[in-house]
Amino acid sequence: MTDASNINYFTEAGSVEAVNARVGDETNPRLREVMESLVRHLHAFAKDVHLTQEEWGVAIDFLTRTGKMCDGNRQEFILLSDVLGLSMLVDAINNRRPSGATENTVLGPFHVEGAPVRAMGDEISLDGKGESCLFEGRVLALDGKPVAGAKLDVWCDNAEGYYDVQQPDIQPKWNNRGVFVTGADGTYAFRGIRPVSYPIPDDGPVGQMLGALGRHPNRPAHMHFIVSADGYETVITHTFVADDKWLTSDAVFGVKSSLLTKMEPGESGDTIWKSNFDFVLNAVRKD
Amino acid sequence: MTDASNINYFTEAGSVEAVNARVGDETNPRLREVMESLVRHLHAFAKDVHLTQEEWGVAIDFLTRTGKMCDGNRQEFILLSDVLGLSMLVDAINNRRPSGATENTVLGPFHVEGAPVRAMGDEISLDGKGESCLFEGRVLALDGKPVAGAKLDVWCDNAEGYYDVQQPDIQPKWNNRGVFVTGADGTYAFRGIRPVSYPIPDDGPVGQMLGALGRHPNRPAHMHFIVSADGYETVITHTFVADDKWLTSDAVFGVKSSLLTKMEPGESGDTIWKSNFDFVLNAVRKD
Repeated sequence: MTDASNINYFTEAGSVEAVNARVGDETNPRLREVMESLVRHLHAFAKDVHLTQEEWGVAIDFLTRTGKMCDGNRQEFILLSDVLGLSMLVDAINNRRPSGATENTVLGPFHVEGAPVRAMGDEISLDGKGESCLFEGRVLALDGKPVAGAKLDVWCDNAEGYYDVQQPDIQPKWNNRGVFVTGADGTYAFRGIRPVSYPIPDDGPVGQMLGALGRHPNRPAHMHFIVSADGYETVITHTFVADDKWLTSDAVFGVKSSLLTKMEPGESGDTIWKSNFDFVLNAVRKD
Repeated sequence: MTDASNINYFTEAGSVEAVNARVGDETNPRLREVMESLVRHLHAFAKDVHLTQEEWGVAIDFLTRTGKMCDGNRQEFILLSDVLGLSMLVDAINNRRPSGATENTVLGPFHVEGAPVRAMGDEISLDGKGESCLFEGRVLALDGKPVAGAKLDVWCDNAEGYYDVQQPDIQPKWNNRGVFVTGADGTYAFRGIRPVSYPIPDDGPVGQMLGALGRHPNRPAHMHFIVSADGYETVITHTFVADDKWLTSDAVFGVKSSLLTKMEPGESGDTIWKSNFDFVLNAVRKD
């Protein structure tokens, strides 16, 4: 019989130590670090709120239904991470930049690799819907110099609030998407539509949770950008229409004040609106 | 345009406040308390370990696969809770008892309502396998007086480590299960087999996690009991065979030192082993 005096049996007070003492000596050090912290915070949560067995059961059922909701077209656990602010937090932790550099925000589920490379000034809206808008600005380094050869991969929803991949039978392929590459002056310009706000999918467990918390599922109108150039950190971000009514309550917390752009009336007459935004890239640190 | 000075946009430092500020005024107060604490601990975890986007992706995939593994016969999220010590912690938080009262441990997934009520001394092992064992003892109040009319609902695995419900085509129905009711002297006795250790199901994501952490999936041998009586708190617990090799490393952390019982040689000659354990019940507080 094992000597009981050497045994770390489970106790309420020593619950974290009991679990973390089990991690094997050969375990990957990073996995150990992450899992030990997870157990510490998970147990602290249960203790802080005095989690009841009934509530634990609700959580098990919620997680199970969230898993069941996932398929090739729907990732309910990412939605859950989004509405709890975790996706934005992980993005923020991993993309700290010096003041003045354009901030990241969440990638979102609707980016598609391989959008057509278009000429500066080209139209990306292919379905003839919505209020026309010119998007223009510069890609700059932190010292204010233009970045030549910067690639801007852009995408947004259509005038009805759906991305092309959500409506493959309705929208033209690559509707409201395109890739643009800057010249020597670092400027960019393309025509599209003024983006519109839309709800994240809320017919699953995450939508039920939002409802119980008195939260709505809407995202404020935004244009997605991935801006990349040799020698610079890639920026994954949106620009947000600055007077959108959901701006202060984005369901996924994507808004940062530095990413707001005011819609101005179009100047040339060929678009109703104009949105100007300069991207400032942070040079990759050479270690 | 909304006044930016009043806006709680997302920042890394203010991530918790940004999310929790969204909870609606009409939200159930308990739901608010639980969710605000969850967000606080979830964000603290991500910050503490500087969670990378790749690791976040691994977590999303793990949770998704865990959900997909669940069906009518398998609850992988409960297994996950079990191996992280959360199930035991929630059990402990909700079943604090005065010193001397029998401690709880996890219910486990194999309890079945409606087992046959048997006469004291009856046999519960119906498949003729295993080493015979007499289980006996008393049900007492904290003051040492016997509890009459106490119901003991007992179940364990068979000699091959499977519960009857895991092998409905192989084991007799109600194999190693029974309900016994104490008389005036509070004693109980039944015949069964010496329980054997067994692994929790480890062919899914939780088993992979255990493997990566250098942990085994085994549970030490135990007999399950639910002991209930009018006027007393119901005890959901196991007794553990005190020299089991997995006693100090139960995959689900169910062992408490007060629940160990030493297997003694049977006295009467009709069983190989004898296991004696007294249950001490805590009176229900009358508010």
